[in-house]
Amino acid sequence: MKCHDSLFLRGMLISALFSKTSKEVRDDADSRNADFLVRGGYIAKTMAGVYSYLPLGLRVLRRIEQIVREEMNAIGGQEILLSALSSREEWQKTGRWDDFDALFHLPGVGDQEYALNPTHEEVIVPVVRQFVHSYRDLPFACYQIQTKFRKELRAKSGVLRGREFLMKDLYSFHQDEENLDEYYAKVQVAYNHIFERLGLLNRTYLTYASGGSFSKYSHEYQVLLPKGEDTIFISEEAENHGKRIAINTEIFEDGKTTCPVTGGSIFRKENASEAANIFKLGTRFTEPFGLHFLDENNEQKLVIMGCYGLGISRILGILAESFSDEKGLVWPGAIAPYTYYIIPLAKKQSDAAYKKAHALYEKLCKEKQECLFDDRIDQSAGSRFADADLLGVPTRIVVSEKTLISNEAEIMERKTGEIKKMDFQQIVKG
Amino acid sequence: MKCHDSLFLRGMLISALFSKTSKEVRDDADSRNADFLVRGGYIAKTMAGVYSYLPLGLRVLRRIEQIVREEMNAIGGQEILLSALSSREEWQKTGRWDDFDALFHLPGVGDQEYALNPTHEEVIVPVVRQFVHSYRDLPFACYQIQTKFRKELRAKSGVLRGREFLMKDLYSFHQDEENLDEYYAKVQVAYNHIFERLGLLNRTYLTYASGGSFSKYSHEYQVLLPKGEDTIFISEEAENHGKRIAINTEIFEDGKTTCPVTGGSIFRKENASEAANIFKLGTRFTEPFGLHFLDENNEQKLVIMGCYGLGISRILGILAESFSDEKGLVWPGAIAPYTYYIIPLAKKQSDAAYKKAHALYEKLCKEKQECLFDDRIDQSAGSRFADADLLGVPTRIVVSEKTLISNEAEIMERKTGEIKKMDFQQIVKG
Repeated sequence: MKCHDSLFLRGMLISALFSKTSKEVRDDADSRNADFLVRGGYIAKTMAGVYSYLPLGLRVLRRIEQIVREEMNAIGGQEILLSALSSREEWQKTGRWDDFDALFHLPGVGDQEYALNPTHEEVIVPVVRQFVHSYRDLPFACYQIQTKFRKELRAKSGVLRGREFLMKDLYSFHQDEENLDEYYAKVQVAYNHIFERLGLLNRTYLTYASGGSFSKYSHEYQVLLPKGEDTIFISEEAENHGKRIAINTEIFEDGKTTCPVTGGSIFRKENASEAANIFKLGTRFTEPFGLHFLDENNEQKLVIMGCYGLGISRILGILAESFSDEKGLVWPGAIAPYTYYIIPLAKKQSDAAYKKAHALYEKLCKEKQECLFDDRIDQSAGSRFADADLLGVPTRIVVSEKTLISNEAEIMERKTGEIKKMDFQQIVKG
Repeated sequence: MKCHDSLFLRGMLISALFSKTSKEVRDDADSRNADFLVRGGYIAKTMAGVYSYLPLGLRVLRRIEQIVREEMNAIGGQEILLSALSSREEWQKTGRWDDFDALFHLPGVGDQEYALNPTHEEVIVPVVRQFVHSYRDLPFACYQIQTKFRKELRAKSGVLRGREFLMKDLYSFHQDEENLDEYYAKVQVAYNHIFERLGLLNRTYLTYASGGSFSKYSHEYQVLLPKGEDTIFISEEAENHGKRIAINTEIFEDGKTTCPVTGGSIFRKENASEAANIFKLGTRFTEPFGLHFLDENNEQKLVIMGCYGLGISRILGILAESFSDEKGLVWPGAIAPYTYYIIPLAKKQSDAAYKKAHALYEKLCKEKQECLFDDRIDQSAGSRFADADLLGVPTRIVVSEKTLISNEAEIMERKTGEIKKMDFQQIVKG
């Protein structure tokens, strides 16, 4: 059995990886994220709007998940995992069985029908009702990272807009609006941390969008993207004060709309992709399910809710779209599937360059670095370099007879293309 | 905001945990696993056969997942995540759209219909076909831990038999039968490791069940359970030789069947629950999808496959059913959501017993131990002890004025009920 290197968690031989790179543009050529992710073997299309995640893609997805998880834990979010299925009856209670845009209706056993959940208010509120009785049980927040479904008429743009996708959804439960407002502000800070860690913060705009009966606005986190399917109007006054604020085109009226933060009226139109959205739900869902509590005065009140979504698989697409060049992907270090891509230029495994490169690979893995080792010595240097570029691993290391003369390796940063020679010991030390 | 202790990953205050224990038997009273898991707030029923995992339940689920993941990685499994949806057309190619027992058919966009996948041969084979061309691309194995769906007519027994459940499914791809046989044997060893780490090995039987056109038998891993829904016939001769071998009732003929391992004919009938099953698929799925490769002689051949399932959420149910007593759950250490359940018996937070217990909690968390801290000093000692028993955390630590006299805490092992006093420093040292 050809299998992982013994250091399987950190290191991987390219020859053992079952997904392969491809030179041909296979699919969704209009979308850079799908093109590079598919050609790099990160993802595979199962059908329109439905993708599977292969070893490299799953690693990136898990990195995004873990950043999100840490930031949700840091604001007291308790992780759970809600069901993908729920009953028609629960969705009828909120009036969304027929009204929700793009809800999949699944014929069940006998006369039953199930929803294939695109969001989880209809699941979490009945669960929470079992546990909340008094103000002492509030506030709290819980979240999940889970696969969701939407019956999109037109699935497109790779993993940016799918029929099946991975989301983080956080729900918060409060005794009053003030307490919700406080937590809502905390989530905004946590979201900023997430976008910062993803390397997207400087192109992410807090975008005002239509609210509901409970609040004037909801907020979206829109990431600038030339091919993004949303249109936003960026407040230039806010930007001049170092704030990234925008208005969604849905609620933008030319000549009338002012920036809710600065009051300014100068806007710049841009394309963007919605990576996250947050809502004050108020009693929209606690009322139909009768989620009450007894307050300090023993009066029965409805619980106040907030909900906070974030698209994990969509962010994978946004990252691929944002961090790429004509040669392929250019992952930021925090998200990359591996840190190093090591290439021995040798004719056989017993050559000094191969042995030295493999020893370096093993050393880096032992130092808890994550490395791909391109052991395909039967392939040309050019095609291996092209694969390293396509996969977008941050640092490429080449070991050849030539570099060995000075006991060095050639290091290339994928982002800048800068090449330098470095002593082996120095590489391991970082 | 009431929230996690700052050491949120390792420690948790009971008052902050949004799921609460319940004294009433709420649901599925015939099934111990559902009763205790629901009463302990580990899981919540969304609808018949569909459960959500709350904070404690998700922790146990993740522990099971991680054990399985490590053992799959150790035999070269490459982790992926396949889609839950697939197209009708793919299932028609294998003839399973109409024939597969309990396949959910989901009306899609326009005339489309999707399968809500109960298994993933129809997804993984087309993916793999993109990458396999030559014998040099074989063998390999890939696996996922993913939510699956079955249109069960009668969902029952808590998380043992659901309409939505979490599975690990591994698929292996080979150039010939010999190579499949080798890997099939490796997977059996890995499965034994898994059941050993779960504490279930001594009650798990490798059970011969009906095969397919490619092999005489498939193999199930059946765990003895008085309320298990399967019936197996245990080979007593095999048992006398230290081997746990059984025959599924499906293929057992009284007076005719002999043990395939020992040739013996003495059997004992038992109830059991199927935790895992493994199959040699041969070309059953590679043929309809045309998954060929060129062998060493440049001849085109069909790839040979194996598949290896294991029920993650079902194992949660089996564990709860297997490790419990009349007071509640009794988790083995490797699976427990937390290791310690610390109870300060104090009237207020400024009491010495509370402060000492909280300091111990913080110290244990710093030492990377995972602890629940029952800060509900307004509740009776009896009800807190009952909760500790119900939740089944391995070690309960009580700190009271009385134990403080000798600068000790009272330690109780949940499994044995054994109580001893221990010096604080000794506890932290383990």
